Amino acid sequence: MASKTLARWATNLTASSLPPPVRRAAIRSLYNYIGCAIGGSKHPAVIKAHDALQPFFGPATSTLYGSSGTVKADAQHAALLNGIASHVHDYDDTHLATIIHPTGPVASAILAYAEYKDAISGSDVLCALTAGIEASCKIGLAVWPEHYDIGWHITSSTGSIGAAVGVGKLMKLSEDQMAHAIGLAAVQVVGLREMFGSDTKSFHPGRAAQSGLLAALLAEKGYTSSSEALEAKRGWANVVAGGGTPRLEHYLSELGRKWEIESNAFKPFPCGIVCHPAIDGCIQLHHELRKQGLSPTDVQKVEARVHPLVIELTSKRTPKDGLEGKFSVFHGCAVALLYGKAGPAQYSDEIVCDSTVITIRDKVDATADQALSADETYLIVHLTDGSTLNKHIRHAIGSLEVPMSDEQLTEKFIDQATLVLGKDAARASNYAWKIGESGNVAEELRML
Amino acid sequence: MASKTLARWATNLTASSLPPPVRRAAIRSLYNYIGCAIGGSKHPAVIKAHDALQPFFGPATSTLYGSSGTVKADAQHAALLNGIASHVHDYDDTHLATIIHPTGPVASAILAYAEYKDAISGSDVLCALTAGIEASCKIGLAVWPEHYDIGWHITSSTGSIGAAVGVGKLMKLSEDQMAHAIGLAAVQVVGLREMFGSDTKSFHPGRAAQSGLLAALLAEKGYTSSSEALEAKRGWANVVAGGGTPRLEHYLSELGRKWEIESNAFKPFPCGIVCHPAIDGCIQLHHELRKQGLSPTDVQKVEARVHPLVIELTSKRTPKDGLEGKFSVFHGCAVALLYGKAGPAQYSDEIVCDSTVITIRDKVDATADQALSADETYLIVHLTDGSTLNKHIRHAIGSLEVPMSDEQLTEKFIDQATLVLGKDAARASNYAWKIGESGNVAEELRML
Repeated sequence: MASKTLARWATNLTASSLPPPVRRAAIRSLYNYIGCAIGGSKHPAVIKAHDALQPFFGPATSTLYGSSGTVKADAQHAALLNGIASHVHDYDDTHLATIIHPTGPVASAILAYAEYKDAISGSDVLCALTAGIEASCKIGLAVWPEHYDIGWHITSSTGSIGAAVGVGKLMKLSEDQMAHAIGLAAVQVVGLREMFGSDTKSFHPGRAAQSGLLAALLAEKGYTSSSEALEAKRGWANVVAGGGTPRLEHYLSELGRKWEIESNAFKPFPCGIVCHPAIDGCIQLHHELRKQGLSPTDVQKVEARVHPLVIELTSKRTPKDGLEGKFSVFHGCAVALLYGKAGPAQYSDEIVCDSTVITIRDKVDATADQALSADETYLIVHLTDGSTLNKHIRHAIGSLEVPMSDEQLTEKFIDQATLVLGKDAARASNYAWKIGESGNVAEELRML
Repeated sequence: MASKTLARWATNLTASSLPPPVRRAAIRSLYNYIGCAIGGSKHPAVIKAHDALQPFFGPATSTLYGSSGTVKADAQHAALLNGIASHVHDYDDTHLATIIHPTGPVASAILAYAEYKDAISGSDVLCALTAGIEASCKIGLAVWPEHYDIGWHITSSTGSIGAAVGVGKLMKLSEDQMAHAIGLAAVQVVGLREMFGSDTKSFHPGRAAQSGLLAALLAEKGYTSSSEALEAKRGWANVVAGGGTPRLEHYLSELGRKWEIESNAFKPFPCGIVCHPAIDGCIQLHHELRKQGLSPTDVQKVEARVHPLVIELTSKRTPKDGLEGKFSVFHGCAVALLYGKAGPAQYSDEIVCDSTVITIRDKVDATADQALSADETYLIVHLTDGSTLNKHIRHAIGSLEVPMSDEQLTEKFIDQATLVLGKDAARASNYAWKIGESGNVAEELRML
């Protein structure tokens, strides 16, 4: 029944029935996705993939974000390339219960398709995105954690099914066709954790998007699969369960009652999540110093008490470039104190090697404290006049308890987009916020 | 080491170093593939996929077989569609040790790419096909049987890697690039057995072909994956092993010493392999009757002693159409006796419902005999004059012990192709046999 349950629920979902917090979560997820896709668009992995595949592009209907609207591809290649771009800086969203990054595969597919059709409204896109994200996360929960433990990259291994459901919604597939689309997506299982650290990690959500789109396109023309693709003895869940016992019925029975998209979180800083509490605290301290008419040059020493994982994963004392900077809690604290920001610009090679930054960085110390939770930190700033400032972060910004505000999401978007689009970043941000209200999303997407 | 072992062996393989029996096996596998791809090209599954994807086709470089040379697609879509066509009648080749149908994914990818490049020789194609088939079958052996038992369609789940190796050969990838291509293919795991009986079964080898081609295209441009994609803790083999212990090193160490392509078998009849011994015997009896100046109307009764699986799987007494005819050993024996053939034409709806065929069919009886091997049968034909003819088939035609001759392969090709190309079938067969000798295979492929 699981496949039919999902197909029926998705087929019946309407934009007007989305609860307001769900609709809001969809708008924010979509907005954050577009910022990440623009931000990643000039990464070498995206360039290489573009160059490899450009000779095979079909009719250019769908925007490759970050290309200032001049470069388009056919919908299938746009789904792939935008999907790669959205994940390539590891800056996309996270469904914390499964660590699925759910929007990349789904949004890359549905936006590419919506632009191809050129007559799809923003509220239909939000509905399709929600359906796809719920699908990915629910089936992900059903096979978590063994599926991830054995080695599947759960973002993409669930993402093709989410993308198929999302595109299927835009196509207004019947319940039967939707089940076949789910089946066609279920046989394309993408993503192995062995690839973490290589270009192929970001290929995963891109290929998942493309595979889901393909599945829906075939199902729309009557291509058949199975109506029990997820739950059958030799169907998706049992084959990829990694030795666990899939709980499809349990999680799919919650569809429409418990919305996974509401617990989709956004990363405030483009580095490992473990150093986010310390960075969050240092940004707050930056503003407190300014309020007192002080500057980071008045700082003598910074002591951070952090969760042990911070030391284990991000204790690079002398990072040499932007990439190494992401593995240095000291660099993160330094730019946060100095600029009040830790965006992509603060992780450039130049800033990581900047002498002022290095001076502050060398004043930061961190010690592990087993008693802290993973998103908690205590900071003490010793000033040159002998006084101290204290800061306790109980939950870092970007956690479910302290979600990023719309303003913070906008700042994140513009910080990323500026590195690609320059002054057009703010304009792109405005269009991206408005997609949900559009009568034909193709018009907004072209403006990105 | 497994991934590097495979990448190194494949990179170093040369057309001139192929032992003659291996080269001959490659020629026959390629020829048989093309016949099947033409034969399947008008199947509804192929038509539906074509119609769904045609709006996304890129530059038309690569022939869709069976289209009389007028319809082409970009190489990626050609790989997909020809791959579907080659498998859709379940009439393709079989590596019996793993029941992989190895040529479909590999040949669909390399021929589409070769036609795109328009400067690739037949001997390079044979070398690439061999490399790809060895890759698929060796890694398939390494995870057999648990991988298949748990539910993967092993033809496609190994096929994308074989296709990547094959295309990588044509590209003359370096050993490093080849390893990355293998990794990029390894993360695209296609095919679940749950889909058997639906259109999606034949989607599997098509998508595997397309995925392998994509992997090689990306690797050629420097896209990185992992140099331990197959053997890593969270790499391909461990993740898809289905609880078994992969034996990659063991099988990959045999590369170039034991050639899997030499044990690639071809199906003589487009129906389940279990009834092939009885059909084989009845075809021989047809010729013996003719030699004696007798005809099937002189037959009073046919008794077949068969392996129990024949009864279990193919004992449909009154098949209603071509598809049901494939599950009737009685129909198979009837057309074999009557026409001396059991090709696609003998499995048409018309022939299955033909009154003369039905008259003979009703005279055929089959009983199970546990003592027989799966490819063995005993037949007794009782004639109206009271005499009998006996036939013992120890190994059916198409088995490794009694392989199809080149003439029989040609008859199979033409029987299939005639239903699609009419009188042009013989011409297509001639071109298909000559591909291995071509200076530029694109020229032969265009003539198909």
